[in-house]
Amino acid sequence: MTDKQKLLVVGSVALDDIETPFGRRESSLGGSAVFFSWASSLFSPSSMVGVVGEDFPERYIRDLKERGIDTKSLKTAPGKTFHWEGKYEYDLNIAHTLKTELNVFENFKPELTEEQKESKYLFLANIDPELQLEVARKMNSPEIVAMDTMNFWIENKRKELIKTLEVVDYLMINDAEARQLGESSNLIKASNNIFKMGPEVIVVKQGEYGVTVFFADGRSRKIEVFSAPSVPLENVVDPTGAGDSFAGAFMGYIAAKGSTENSVLRQAVILGSVVASYTVEGFSIDRLKDIGIKDVKDRFKYLKKISHFEDI
Amino acid sequence: MTDKQKLLVVGSVALDDIETPFGRRESSLGGSAVFFSWASSLFSPSSMVGVVGEDFPERYIRDLKERGIDTKSLKTAPGKTFHWEGKYEYDLNIAHTLKTELNVFENFKPELTEEQKESKYLFLANIDPELQLEVARKMNSPEIVAMDTMNFWIENKRKELIKTLEVVDYLMINDAEARQLGESSNLIKASNNIFKMGPEVIVVKQGEYGVTVFFADGRSRKIEVFSAPSVPLENVVDPTGAGDSFAGAFMGYIAAKGSTENSVLRQAVILGSVVASYTVEGFSIDRLKDIGIKDVKDRFKYLKKISHFEDI
Repeated sequence: MTDKQKLLVVGSVALDDIETPFGRRESSLGGSAVFFSWASSLFSPSSMVGVVGEDFPERYIRDLKERGIDTKSLKTAPGKTFHWEGKYEYDLNIAHTLKTELNVFENFKPELTEEQKESKYLFLANIDPELQLEVARKMNSPEIVAMDTMNFWIENKRKELIKTLEVVDYLMINDAEARQLGESSNLIKASNNIFKMGPEVIVVKQGEYGVTVFFADGRSRKIEVFSAPSVPLENVVDPTGAGDSFAGAFMGYIAAKGSTENSVLRQAVILGSVVASYTVEGFSIDRLKDIGIKDVKDRFKYLKKISHFEDI
Repeated sequence: MTDKQKLLVVGSVALDDIETPFGRRESSLGGSAVFFSWASSLFSPSSMVGVVGEDFPERYIRDLKERGIDTKSLKTAPGKTFHWEGKYEYDLNIAHTLKTELNVFENFKPELTEEQKESKYLFLANIDPELQLEVARKMNSPEIVAMDTMNFWIENKRKELIKTLEVVDYLMINDAEARQLGESSNLIKASNNIFKMGPEVIVVKQGEYGVTVFFADGRSRKIEVFSAPSVPLENVVDPTGAGDSFAGAFMGYIAAKGSTENSVLRQAVILGSVVASYTVEGFSIDRLKDIGIKDVKDRFKYLKKISHFEDI
């Protein structure tokens, strides 16, 4: 298997209209699979499964290919591309969805090539849990299956979501959603409940407060914790794609290292925070296009510095 | 000057009725000065300025004295002790105040002994900013003046609060209150605005998400940041006193080290988080009474472990 097929992502490819206090963008390139694969490509090339409509600009596909992203399974279907319209208020913490048009995504049937089925690492971005499970089942024993989800699925497809979680190793989820899924306001208790559903690592994204990771240790029945800061930012332009960029860098680094040792996972979390911090400094993938591994290393070092304290 | 007079705190001493999902306590020992001095005494003895009523149990004074806390300026006035009644809902994040009876605190006139005026470290707990300034002005050039405040004073005595901040070195404040005081939803921008009011260090307490500290660097005009995790807790019994215990351990360690070097401040923050984590595991000062320096060191090491990541 070549390097190209190591990391597979299934998710949305979108044309978004986004308004923040810092500007407005129309028909801008978005979607979970786009942010994920653009971020992961800083470390490891990835292969994308998704669908776009006939309105999807050819130049975006070209950009993805030039970035080294495999778009063989990014299909074009009759109709319009998945479209999201959102607005962020002054504090940028809450996205108000103004419109969601599934369009070609409504009848999306993910199809994987034989090569893709052999991928070692699979990321199921935030889509319908039944679709997520369908993709996971097509795979030939991947080493790690990671997924994202959201309150909508927790509320409306809890049963299906729990079924999908059975085949998932790493769950990446927002703070409030972790408590909702784990049915406890206490994160440790919520994590213990989620561990029973299948995942052995829960990456809880806490926005500007950083990330807390819970590792299940089957033998000791104790939870191991990793607590990571976020990069303090003075100028957040558009938070869209932060979580998917985080996941992309996280999985991309794991694929590049070919290891899921605890020390590698910790570094992957920090790299996820770093890449997400760049994403939110611009609209769409604008900032991601700008940065290279040197920029990533700079902020990695910065996070090391701001979280350092000496033994007493 | 003896060691005893190095650290001075002015704040409330209270008899609280507290209800949490885990139980109910009536007339339990509370107040900012109590939590502060009990926590600080793990590292350095302190002296307390405050007032209690005639109903205040003699045994509580005895406990404080036995702990090595100087209570010479803890006056007994005719009437009842300051009384707070609060209730925490299931998620323990929000305290609902059911009743606040100032009682003897209404006419509290802080008086300092000549020895106390020579203290090197002063903590102005969360009381009326005019009272805080009055105490700060009685001092003979203390090395560090630190203070806490809350939304009530920011909203109702903003002018007086800003006047007090002029003489303050370290501000310890909740996340939402820092944004409110600094008039920006962005913490870096808010901190820059607060720096202009006087403080050079802003300790932003973020509850279970940890603590972020902003250090003003006058020369480079750049902010230095320290980001500290909190101790993940499965069993929080009563959050009352967390912030004051944090401040107590923080200031107590600084007083014990006799240093305000950046590396000492970082350790002091971690120790603040550690001691606060014990406080909330019981009502009143129950847990603080139980623990010793070994317990503190254990959780310090634990925080080191859960925040560790290797260079890439």
